[in-house]
Parts: sequence; C-alpha cells; structure tokens
Amino acid sequence: MTTVHPHDAVEVIRTKRDGGAVSESALRWLIEHYTKGYVSDAQMASFAMAVLLRGMEREEIRVMTDAMIASGERMDFSSLGKPTVDKHSTGGVGDKITLPLAPLVAAFGVAVPQLSGRGLGHTGGTLDKLESIPGWRAALSNDEIMAQLADVGAVICAAGSGLAPADKKLYALRDVTGTVEAIPLIASSIMSKKIAEGTDSLVLDVKFGSGAFMQDIDRARELARTMVALGTDSGVNTTALLTDMNTPLGLAIGNANEVRESVEVLAGGGPADVVELTVALAREMLTLAGQPDADVEAALRDGRAMDVWKRMIRAQDGDPDAALPTPRETHTVVAERSGVVTRIEALPFGIGAWRLGAGRARAEDAVVHAAGIDLHVTVGQPVTAGQPLFTLSADDGARFDRALGAVEGAWEIGDAVPAASPLVRERITA
Amino acid sequence: MTTVHPHDAVEVIRTKRDGGAVSESALRWLIEHYTKGYVSDAQMASFAMAVLLRGMEREEIRVMTDAMIASGERMDFSSLGKPTVDKHSTGGVGDKITLPLAPLVAAFGVAVPQLSGRGLGHTGGTLDKLESIPGWRAALSNDEIMAQLADVGAVICAAGSGLAPADKKLYALRDVTGTVEAIPLIASSIMSKKIAEGTDSLVLDVKFGSGAFMQDIDRARELARTMVALGTDSGVNTTALLTDMNTPLGLAIGNANEVRESVEVLAGGGPADVVELTVALAREMLTLAGQPDADVEAALRDGRAMDVWKRMIRAQDGDPDAALPTPRETHTVVAERSGVVTRIEALPFGIGAWRLGAGRARAEDAVVHAAGIDLHVTVGQPVTAGQPLFTLSADDGARFDRALGAVEGAWEIGDAVPAASPLVRERITA
Repeated sequence: MTTVHPHDAVEVIRTKRDGGAVSESALRWLIEHYTKGYVSDAQMASFAMAVLLRGMEREEIRVMTDAMIASGERMDFSSLGKPTVDKHSTGGVGDKITLPLAPLVAAFGVAVPQLSGRGLGHTGGTLDKLESIPGWRAALSNDEIMAQLADVGAVICAAGSGLAPADKKLYALRDVTGTVEAIPLIASSIMSKKIAEGTDSLVLDVKFGSGAFMQDIDRARELARTMVALGTDSGVNTTALLTDMNTPLGLAIGNANEVRESVEVLAGGGPADVVELTVALAREMLTLAGQPDADVEAALRDGRAMDVWKRMIRAQDGDPDAALPTPRETHTVVAERSGVVTRIEALPFGIGAWRLGAGRARAEDAVVHAAGIDLHVTVGQPVTAGQPLFTLSADDGARFDRALGAVEGAWEIGDAVPAASPLVRERITA
Repeated sequence: MTTVHPHDAVEVIRTKRDGGAVSESALRWLIEHYTKGYVSDAQMASFAMAVLLRGMEREEIRVMTDAMIASGERMDFSSLGKPTVDKHSTGGVGDKITLPLAPLVAAFGVAVPQLSGRGLGHTGGTLDKLESIPGWRAALSNDEIMAQLADVGAVICAAGSGLAPADKKLYALRDVTGTVEAIPLIASSIMSKKIAEGTDSLVLDVKFGSGAFMQDIDRARELARTMVALGTDSGVNTTALLTDMNTPLGLAIGNANEVRESVEVLAGGGPADVVELTVALAREMLTLAGQPDADVEAALRDGRAMDVWKRMIRAQDGDPDAALPTPRETHTVVAERSGVVTRIEALPFGIGAWRLGAGRARAEDAVVHAAGIDLHVTVGQPVTAGQPLFTLSADDGARFDRALGAVEGAWEIGDAVPAASPLVRERITA
C-alpha cells in the first residue's frame, strides 16, 4: 500500500468514473506514466471509457492536450518571419481540399505547414493522394520543411513521429477498445498534433453526415466548439466550419483521380462544391493570417495558386506535369431510368472506392493509386436512361463485384429536384 | 475488415457503451475469448467500465455468470443423497460466522460445502482464521471434499483454481482498473464460483456500513437483489440477509482470537451479535434445505454443533483441542473518561488489525495468526475512566503506533445510550 507516485492510476480512473474533474497534476502524471508504460493499457482503456461516458471539463481537455504535446517535440516556425496557418479536416469521402488549398493560401505570402496523414478505412489520406504523383516524397526533415516554407510557402508532408507520441499510443488503444468516439479525446488527439506543429492559426473543417466520422451535426458542433476552445486556450487562433459530408465532395473518389480534380481547381475550373469549400477555407485561413480581404478566387483564376502548387510538388521531388497512373480496368454504371439524381450517399461510395483498392484496411497495406470511383453526375442533375452515372476503376476487375455491392442503393434517381442544402453549414469562432 | 470471429470485441464494447444489452452469443464469445487471451485486458477493462456506468440487464448478468462458470470445472454433490447449502458473506470486520455456522447447519444432516478464500486488505479471510489451528489444512482434493461431506457433513476449505478461472482473471483486472464497484460484475464474480461449486441452496450475507465493501444500504440491497435473482435464474435457491457492518462483529478481530470466539459460540456462549447472526443465517440455510422448524439454538446449547466442529477440524488434520497461537506483545487502551460507549467503527478497527499483521497487503504475504484486536466493551455499555476498552496484539510492538493511528477517533464515549439498530436489517428472497 506504499504510494511511490504522487498519484495512483486507480484513483484517477475513479475520479473520472464518478463524474469528477481530474486535477492538473493527476492528468499530467497519467499521460506521462502511460507514455512511459507505468500506467497499463488496461488502466488507460478504462479511463478512456470513463471519459467517453462522463465527459471532461474545458480545463481538463486543455491540460490533457498539453501533457500529450509535452510527451514529444514541438516545432517552431517563428524564425520564418511570416504568419503560419494550417487546416485540419476530420475526414470525408472525396476530400482532396488540402491539395488546392495549401498552395492557394501560400500564394498570399502566408506559410502553410500542412503535416498530414495516410488514410485508413473509407476516408482517404492526403499523403496517399499525393503519392500518385511520380517522384513525390512525403517524408521531409524539419530542416527541409523550414526551407520549403521559407521558399515556396506551402508544405504538405508526413507528420514526424516525434510530435505527441502519447497521442499515437493512446489513439491505437482507443481504436481497439471502443473509445474512439469520446469528444474530449478526439479533440485532444487532433489538437495536440496541430499545436505541437507550432502553427499560429488553424482552421478546422469539421464534417457531419453519412461520410463523416461524426454523422450527427450536434456532435460535430460539440467537437468543433471543443477544438476551437482548446486551440484558443493553447494560444492558437482557431476557427471551425461545420460542413456537410452526406454527399461525396467533388466527382473523384480515390487517389490519382483526386489529384487530377485538384489540379482542375487550381486551373480555375473543377466541381463547384470543391471550389466553394476551398475558397471558404482559404478565406478563413487568410482572415486569421491578417488578410480578410484577400481575393482568393482571383488567385485560382490567374494561375498564382497553380504556380505555388507546381513549385511545392517539385520541392518534394515530384513532377507536376507527369502523367498520373491510369487503371487497368474500368466499369461504368448507367442510369436505369430517366429523371433527376436525388441522392449520392458518401459512405457507401467511400467504402466502394476503398474496396477497389484506393484505401487500406491495415496501416501496413499499400493503396492502388489508380483505383477509385469517378462520378459523372451530381445531385439535382437531370439524367436520361442509359446515361453514365459513375465509373469504377481498379487494377483487377475481380474487385468490381464487392465495390458494386457497397454502393448498391446508395444513389437514387427520382422525379423532383431535391432541395439544395448548403455545404458550409455553420462557422464557429472563439 | 475480414471478420474471423462471429463477434468483434469493439462491437460488444460499443453496444454496452451505448446502453444496449449484449446478446447471449456475444457475451459468451467475449468471456471465452478473454479467458483464452484473444480479447485483450485493455478491451475487457473498457467493457468493465462501460458495464459499471451503463449497467446490465438481469438476463445479461445470468449469461455472463454462466459463461464464467463454463470457463472451468463444475462440482456435483448430487451423489451425496442429502441437500447441500452454502453461505457467502460479502466480507466485514470480525466476520467469523462461517466457523460456527457450517458445523451448526451440518448438525441437522445437511451438507455444507463451504469453499472459502483468504483475506486481502482490511477484511479477514476464513482460511486465514482456521490456519491458526495447529495442523489444519485448507487444500483438499475434490474426492476429500466429497468424503468429508458424506461423513462429517461440513467442509471449510480452499476453492480450487479450476472453478471459474475467467472470474479470477477478470477480478484481478478490475482491481487495477477502477471497475471493482460494478454491481453486475460483483454479482457474477461471487455467484459464478458459488454456482460452479454445485450447491443446491445459498444464503448470502450482504453487508453494508463502514466496515463493508458496500457502505451504502441501497447499493447493498441492489447487490443482494441482483445476486438472489441470479441464483434463482441459475437454479440455486438463494436468499439474502442485509446485515449491519458499521460495528465490528463480536469482540475479536484477527485470526486465532476469532477462532476462540467461534468456539465460545459453539459451546453455547459467545458475544450476542455473533450468536444472533449465526442463528439467523443457520435458520435461512435450514429453511432452504427443507427444515424451517429446526431448533438451531438447541444444537449450540447441547454440543451437537461443537461435535461436528471437532470432527470437521480433525478431518482436515487439525487439532481442535490444541492451544492457539498467542501474541508476543500486547497493548491495552483504556477509557479516558466515564460514560457510555456510543461508537466503535468497523473500518478503522479492521485496518488496525490489518496493520498489526492479521491481514495482508499483497496476496503473497503471510498473516500473523496471533495478531489482531480484542474489544473488551460493546456499543451501549457503560464504562468508567481507566477501564480497558481494547487490546492490540502483535508479534512486534513496533506495529502498535500505526495500528493506534488507524483506530484513532474510531471509538467514542458519550453520556447517552445510543439507539440500538438491528443487526439483520432486511431479508431478500426470490
């Protein structure tokens, strides 16, 4: 019964279990000792479940996040002499916004250090998409990141393992213990990495709907508010947009095809929804960076954003003009009747693209860059019987059956044009 | 995403987390795969916390208990040709009731297979107490248990490790993850062992108050009701008594001294509260065994219970007439003023006896059989200044300071006789 440590894991768990607030020193003790292995996975899993069911106060979330940041290194961009601003999306289907967004914002002289991840499950990963580009390299040293931010202004690269290692360990545990959905833990997981990254400002794209992590808008709003409060409490200017993820974003779902669509946006074209969200997020980022009146759309029209994109890809050994991988096999689905497209549901299409090889089931799997789904129609568009609706792409035609099984019933052709719902639903600020 | 098993641990955890009932096949799958190590400690800890905060339905508790029983062997006393009845206490301070109770009930021709445990923390263990008797042996084979039940009628021995091994593993996990207090888990832990033991009937002594596991009577009642329902659903006739554990039971707290007090009761004497509870529990047990009119008190007066006691101790190689260990050092505390004893609090006296060496902090520690506390007064008794109140016993006088620290403020001498509160508060039946 001798107490070696100032805190005891069971005592901390009980406090949270019984609905109390855990003290700053106890929370810091817990995270530090979990990272070092003195607090067991079983104890941390029990604590995570208690947090999921009992919640955490704003101050507890701030302390927990800070303790996770303290478990690793912190980056510092202050020597750049220009404002830094980053974007984080909670993930969706067809969400390639980072690709046009980072060069677009950097075109205004702002530094955009976009440390990103790979996809798992039905949501794609920014690094997987960019690796479709021949030669492009995701892993950069901290010195390379600094040099590229100074020179080009935008970097999209892999987050180093040195940032918030406690979060990495805790996230892997939550994934297998049914505790992923705890809002305080989601918020501290996302924000610990973003704050450790050292950005001055941050814009969050918090998605809700069938293709999002949070299907319910109320829970998405709660997460957004929690993260905005956490960023603010930690000295990062943070704003969030709540955006609709019931329908795939743009027409391309996959990797190489999403790069193609991103380049179309950078060339002044591209699907209206991708352009709308890119512009909305760019405006938020530039407002936080002190340029609320920047003419974002002009930088897409006049090639300034495209110019930064090409320099950014080249700086990471990629060839922005090289041909992207093309699929060996394709399969196109056509309309069985004439009418109006009333529904294209994000989650089944995300799962379908994943089954075609665009995503991975395990972290160690490789993705097929040319695999995915290209939509040919959007919700609200009139179609005639026999008109192509979407095309599946894969390296192996044997994958089509399972992908078709995933998307079955996920689109609808009706008679009346459905009511339009706004893509950006709410804006949440400190 | 290939599902190898019919169930997935995360899916089961989520169901309970979100307040649902886990299906029979999923619960059986969970317990079986946890016992085999395919479900991790972290997953089971998260599930246990979800059970603690969300509860379980009656049917879930029955299935969980049955799955834990199925993880090990089951005993079968049906060949004895006489009814079997067992008692379980949730544990208290000075609780030696099993010692006089088992031979008393067996004196009426009923078989009493009392598979018991050792103490941990401030609550003593029946086996530790009996091991004060020179030669007495706790470990019996199943054949020895059967032979002794046929011949003597009563056995108090160690529960074999073959009974409900899943419970053993789960209990050790709950102990370090802040999930001990979940009523469905407490109930299934206790009852899985008792049902696997194969008794026809079971009487539960569920204690509440300062010296009990459940301090609150409402929670103790909920536990009692849960266990009575569980026993009933599992084919064991089960009754519970809710008994007060705010004051130590009897005058002796320790090991050898509790055996001495038990022998006094078997000789027709002993403290009134120990006799009252022994008789009340014996009546419940004999009622379940079909003898509601048995004259229990006569068997204490006329030596029949004592006769079974001596045969029971001898059958396990103990000498019931041998001298019990005596302490090397004693320290007596006297009344500072005259008045009436208004309070003797169970928990601090239990902790005091533990610190004197009567209990253990870790499962592998040994206990000091002669260590403990003997009370010389009871609540409501008038005392005069200088009159001995209690005596501490230990093998090493250096232990007295820590024991006195534990009991400081735990007794009170006042002016008015306190209102008497009944020892047996409620009776709970199916």
